[in-house]
Amino acid sequence: MTDNDKRALKAHKDWQGKIEVISRAKVTNRDELTVAYTPGVAEPCLEIQKDESLAYEYTRKGNLVAVITNGTAVLGLGDIGPAAGMPVMEGKCALFKEFAGIDAFPICVDSKDPDELVNIIYKISKSFGGINLEDIGAPACFEVERRLKELCDIPVFHDDQHGTAIVVSAALLNAAKLKGKKPEELKVVLNGAGAAGISIAKLLISIGFTDIILCDVFGTIYEGGPALTDAQREMAKISNKGKLAGTLRDAMVGADVFIGVSKGNLVSQDMVRSMNENPIIFAMANPVPEISYDDAKRAGAYIIGTGRSDYPNQINNVLIFPGIFKGALAVRATAITESMKIAAAKGLAAVVTDEELNPEYIIPDVFDKRVADVVAKAVADEAVKLGIARI
Amino acid sequence: MTDNDKRALKAHKDWQGKIEVISRAKVTNRDELTVAYTPGVAEPCLEIQKDESLAYEYTRKGNLVAVITNGTAVLGLGDIGPAAGMPVMEGKCALFKEFAGIDAFPICVDSKDPDELVNIIYKISKSFGGINLEDIGAPACFEVERRLKELCDIPVFHDDQHGTAIVVSAALLNAAKLKGKKPEELKVVLNGAGAAGISIAKLLISIGFTDIILCDVFGTIYEGGPALTDAQREMAKISNKGKLAGTLRDAMVGADVFIGVSKGNLVSQDMVRSMNENPIIFAMANPVPEISYDDAKRAGAYIIGTGRSDYPNQINNVLIFPGIFKGALAVRATAITESMKIAAAKGLAAVVTDEELNPEYIIPDVFDKRVADVVAKAVADEAVKLGIARI
Repeated sequence: MTDNDKRALKAHKDWQGKIEVISRAKVTNRDELTVAYTPGVAEPCLEIQKDESLAYEYTRKGNLVAVITNGTAVLGLGDIGPAAGMPVMEGKCALFKEFAGIDAFPICVDSKDPDELVNIIYKISKSFGGINLEDIGAPACFEVERRLKELCDIPVFHDDQHGTAIVVSAALLNAAKLKGKKPEELKVVLNGAGAAGISIAKLLISIGFTDIILCDVFGTIYEGGPALTDAQREMAKISNKGKLAGTLRDAMVGADVFIGVSKGNLVSQDMVRSMNENPIIFAMANPVPEISYDDAKRAGAYIIGTGRSDYPNQINNVLIFPGIFKGALAVRATAITESMKIAAAKGLAAVVTDEELNPEYIIPDVFDKRVADVVAKAVADEAVKLGIARI
Repeated sequence: MTDNDKRALKAHKDWQGKIEVISRAKVTNRDELTVAYTPGVAEPCLEIQKDESLAYEYTRKGNLVAVITNGTAVLGLGDIGPAAGMPVMEGKCALFKEFAGIDAFPICVDSKDPDELVNIIYKISKSFGGINLEDIGAPACFEVERRLKELCDIPVFHDDQHGTAIVVSAALLNAAKLKGKKPEELKVVLNGAGAAGISIAKLLISIGFTDIILCDVFGTIYEGGPALTDAQREMAKISNKGKLAGTLRDAMVGADVFIGVSKGNLVSQDMVRSMNENPIIFAMANPVPEISYDDAKRAGAYIIGTGRSDYPNQINNVLIFPGIFKGALAVRATAITESMKIAAAKGLAAVVTDEELNPEYIIPDVFDKRVADVVAKAVADEAVKLGIARI
């Protein structure tokens, strides 16, 4: 155990939980009790029974997000189970509050069966204004999210997929701007074809980065290639248009952008040197990136982003999930759609002004106070435009 | 809508939810982020994976109760559904915090099927230190509670049944004391043979009030009687030993105690006059009692309790549920057993000192600051004695 691990363990013991439920209703005398509880409480109940949308008026629903996991893909720790996943969920909830003022409550579901997960989450969903799925392993996460989105009339958002995709998209938009290129002019190689990788690829394509090749441990993903998952097969249809069959090393030759959501030390300096001039490297494996910041620099990378807080351009979901839910909740949106994700990415990218933009600053700092509100406004405006706002 | 209803509605609108989730972990800079979230959070996760009981150390579990309903028996409003039940659940959670410092979070499950309810509640139970079932209709509530108690290693407590039973038991213990009688010397008639009535009868019998007759709308419950539910059939075996078949009016003749958890205006002054001298009347129907305080007084009642806050001896669950959970959580009890309920009743009764005890003060005031801690200590001590404490 490192000193930092010991420090984190002690802090968690001292906190006795990173979130707390408090009362907003003072109940210190008989009169207050009759208003907050019986008999006064009957009236808001009856109003909601008549019109369920009034739950936004008379309960916490309008500012409340459920952070739900089954503990099957917690951080890099894997399938550690629902109880062990709790510290991460509480942490996520703390971040929701600290970064966007949103009440978030963690719920760990002890099930790996997609049918059961969908049923449980749906049947407890009514009192929340949104659902943040977290650390649910692939491929279950795809089905669970897709079916819940069909069932629920509130946003359902798997942050591990879409949060990462939106931040990467924002960063790449600004990187393209710095290089003076249009999205479609950049050849992108993305290593890691799991939930996060596929979501990144989809959103990048939606945004205009249409020249993209996905790789997994077996090499490039191409139409008709062997051993593809359903999600990969779908991606093969809309990416790698040249149907390149080969290794990651092959794919990177002549590429402009490398994005890694895979494992540490998979990319050598030579591989970076085989790319086009002034390449963009987002090496996001954590804590050890696909190629270290220093090695990427030495190999001539022009812009480097990582998941780490000790180097420039930290690509971190906390730049997105607080703002995207804040915006969706603000207008009581029924969903977080693809175009709302694009609006969020563009909003996040625009936080960095033209004057600020440089290779070491393509994405705002995690603690930049402007971010959540800018993202929220972009997302809320788009929901209104789509006609899925309810306020 | 009365003025009070309007006031309650406005208060609920102003509150925008009676509970709030806040962060206990400060996350205002990079260093704090690495402790509360990645990478620091991995360590408590791994510790809990090795030993699940450490969830009490590193998460909120030890002070966290789920308040769970399906909205089928909300107050006197009936089956108004999970969304409309939320204001009551939030109110309950606010009371948990205000009266015992316990974090309680409301979960509304959209299901009436006992199998499904059990499965859903069980599968989300691991991150809580206790489960308070609330406003679930009979007979589902019996099965749901029984099966969850078998499945869970944390307390599962249906407050509508047991909270009421404990407060009534405490009040009756003090009433017996005032009359100078032993519990078994008092003839008790209990009107209302649903979930609350049956739970009260069971606990009174456990405590020693063995001479008891239950009535429902059809009259007395007796062994071999017609149209009994399963729960009533079970009660018929251990109550009404004289197998009296008759009406509530018949049963009350010569009784010492009337307890009502039924409907307003069912008991006349004549019926009270037919009881033994100086009778005890707990008329708890709300807002209109089985007999009004003034009528009971006029008919010669010696001790009168109601569910109302505007008369003496208010019999209110808030005297019990905060303390009983506080005690159970304090020792990480695996359950709330029958003997812990008895300990809670005796603890609550003992809050009223011999000097304080009089016919208008047999039960502490709802806002008596001593109550929660006295009840908690009695419950925790009993859990330790039973060997079901884990700390």
